[in-house]
Amino acid sequence: MTPPGAALFTDLYEITMAEAYLEEGLTDTAVFELFFRHLPPARSYALAAGLEDVLDYAESFHFDDAQIAYLRSLGKFREPFLERLRGLRFSGEIWAVPEGTVVFEHEPVLQVIAPVLEAQLLETWLVNQLHVHTVIASKAARVVDAAQGRMVVDFGARRTHGFQAGLVLARSAFLAGASASSNLLACERYGIPPSGTMAHSYVQAHADEERAFDAFARLFPGTTLLVDTYDTLAGVRKAAEVARRRPGCVGAIRLDSGDLAALAKQARRILDEAGLQQVRIVASGDLDEYSIAGLVAAGAPIDGFGVGTRMAVSADAPTMDFVYKLVEYAGEGRAKLSSSKVLHPGRKQVFRCMRDGAMTHDVIGRFDETPPGRPLLQPVFRDGKRLHRETLGQIRARARRERDALPAQLRGIDAPTERYRVEISDALERDLAALRARLHV
Amino acid sequence: MTPPGAALFTDLYEITMAEAYLEEGLTDTAVFELFFRHLPPARSYALAAGLEDVLDYAESFHFDDAQIAYLRSLGKFREPFLERLRGLRFSGEIWAVPEGTVVFEHEPVLQVIAPVLEAQLLETWLVNQLHVHTVIASKAARVVDAAQGRMVVDFGARRTHGFQAGLVLARSAFLAGASASSNLLACERYGIPPSGTMAHSYVQAHADEERAFDAFARLFPGTTLLVDTYDTLAGVRKAAEVARRRPGCVGAIRLDSGDLAALAKQARRILDEAGLQQVRIVASGDLDEYSIAGLVAAGAPIDGFGVGTRMAVSADAPTMDFVYKLVEYAGEGRAKLSSSKVLHPGRKQVFRCMRDGAMTHDVIGRFDETPPGRPLLQPVFRDGKRLHRETLGQIRARARRERDALPAQLRGIDAPTERYRVEISDALERDLAALRARLHV
Repeated sequence: MTPPGAALFTDLYEITMAEAYLEEGLTDTAVFELFFRHLPPARSYALAAGLEDVLDYAESFHFDDAQIAYLRSLGKFREPFLERLRGLRFSGEIWAVPEGTVVFEHEPVLQVIAPVLEAQLLETWLVNQLHVHTVIASKAARVVDAAQGRMVVDFGARRTHGFQAGLVLARSAFLAGASASSNLLACERYGIPPSGTMAHSYVQAHADEERAFDAFARLFPGTTLLVDTYDTLAGVRKAAEVARRRPGCVGAIRLDSGDLAALAKQARRILDEAGLQQVRIVASGDLDEYSIAGLVAAGAPIDGFGVGTRMAVSADAPTMDFVYKLVEYAGEGRAKLSSSKVLHPGRKQVFRCMRDGAMTHDVIGRFDETPPGRPLLQPVFRDGKRLHRETLGQIRARARRERDALPAQLRGIDAPTERYRVEISDALERDLAALRARLHV
Repeated sequence: MTPPGAALFTDLYEITMAEAYLEEGLTDTAVFELFFRHLPPARSYALAAGLEDVLDYAESFHFDDAQIAYLRSLGKFREPFLERLRGLRFSGEIWAVPEGTVVFEHEPVLQVIAPVLEAQLLETWLVNQLHVHTVIASKAARVVDAAQGRMVVDFGARRTHGFQAGLVLARSAFLAGASASSNLLACERYGIPPSGTMAHSYVQAHADEERAFDAFARLFPGTTLLVDTYDTLAGVRKAAEVARRRPGCVGAIRLDSGDLAALAKQARRILDEAGLQQVRIVASGDLDEYSIAGLVAAGAPIDGFGVGTRMAVSADAPTMDFVYKLVEYAGEGRAKLSSSKVLHPGRKQVFRCMRDGAMTHDVIGRFDETPPGRPLLQPVFRDGKRLHRETLGQIRARARRERDALPAQLRGIDAPTERYRVEISDALERDLAALRARLHV
């Protein structure tokens, strides 16, 4: 989904650099690679996501007249360059790892091969989109896995950073294995099953809690009743009363505050004693992978989790250090050598090595190497058109397969004691040494 | 800025509750209040923001035919309700504290007074927008204040959670006192001064660093040169050489990695020895209020800060627990009594008490009370129209005045040792007690 005006969602320096490339006659092909340098401390892997929004953007990339007029009004740019921008489309090639692929530090997840002016102009959007999708999908995968097969539903629309992030959240959570989302715009757009219960305000608007339950169960058979507006266990008893009076009309109750493990056990007992074994228990309220794992470990009889805020912003790791770096220009490898941010020159490929269905290690090599292992980067855009289109269901299946192939010690939610092995090929190391020698640094 | 389809950016339960209100004949006026329960641990105050996007939304709120068709396709809703949604506009009233106002726990920052069906449908969008704007503006205020008058520029577009958050970031940072933003779409939309330097890729695309500097300085006189692509101090010397050769063409150098305080001192010496006292030093690279305060305290000769990731997501406190709660229905106070989330019933006003130009404490009272202090909530929307429109400059000036009126111990960036005093009026406490008695809990 590319909003109108997206080409101007860019840092000023992308435009000034583009003009400089044009003025200086730097029109050769560049290769930029998008990767992250570090996983957040608690993460063992990241789940690549966001390619769909990148391909949409690349296909529709253009500056409209109003944007050209705005750029002209800044008084910084020359007319020939503004004219060039007016007709500009993205003519290059994009390679990427498919969404739902497990990725690690320094592995390019996307490559842009294009005239340097064009490749430069894509930077801000590409980093922004792959970043937010990957950050949220990686968090959601942890939440889903902590629930060990119990249902997870995205309830986070109200706490994401803006509405686009709300769409990203619903899509990323579903991609990572969530069952549904409360966000209708996202459900409509991505074909995700919508899910919802009731809010405290509904109960409060009624003079009497049981009357509120009764009305809602009658209107929406199979619904979930929120029981903690006043006194939680009294609420459970009223919900049970309504469930007995209206068979099949109460699908579940929702606990949203207090000691969820203890309340779930008491609620289960109340429901079972009323012969309501089929009425399920859903929990919500500031949940994340840690609290869910705790509830599962405590044997809390909870059938599903509504997860909001902490998943919605990936609260413990809201960012990753994704960068978009020039690695080749005019056929020559380019590097960055400053301090801790060394960059190997040249276009790369990532090779994933497996044994007995489990990942053993990856090798980052030169694009033209052929070591063992499956190459992860695939062509996804060429000649102005996307080459790649997958359903969210396909991506979701891949995300599951990929996590199932992780080495066992990387699958859990605890901070990893050892990192997945990612090797740099000898050829890449030699290229870096040669470049250092040439630059005398 | 309200995107197309915004009415569907809502949780499913808002729609089911709306149908239930209609079916049950619950058509009376409700009062909902939007507030947060806790400040994040490191925060002494929050800076209210986001009202502009709320008023836009309220004015344009409607479901279009495609959305109604989507809702129908879910098979959950009855035709009379879908017909009602088709013609629905927001007919209620909104009161709010102006953007840039300093606010505290439990203080309503916004009130919606409307038929309960309409007020309910606004919830998800209102919380989402006031939340992200307030979270980011509150973080940006800390960054700006830590810089103690040195320039702060928003560089964060690539790391916000999606593109709307990028716009929110640029606006919130400027509102909080930043000088400029790199995000052109935001600058165009909000009239913010754009700012930018160059990226490593520009230097790398050239065979020679000094030639890159020379070309850029010639094309964009007054520009900032990024000096850390290879060897930082060697880069500074090359920038100095270009600055001497092209008087007036180099405005500043930018340090983006390494020990910024030490490098800034060495760079300043190199520049000064070259007679380039007017060339300024800008620093960037994972900065936040803490690292900026450290650089200022160390006497680093840095003239401005480019701040990205950590401000872009409010990394140390990416969320606040904003909620939207029913406090009155059909003229009667409503409350929520469960566990730790007690809610005082009834429509409220916030009264701010000052002495000698400094804030002393606030009182949350009943809307009809008249205690001392300035009432913060003002009418901003009525009869389908916004009553309130401010320039970003006006809001920015308020945000400065408000922080200057804070008690001294709350102005800094350290975790507060004492909280600002917010009292609940006796009348509100009596109303809660009366309601508890009535509900027998």
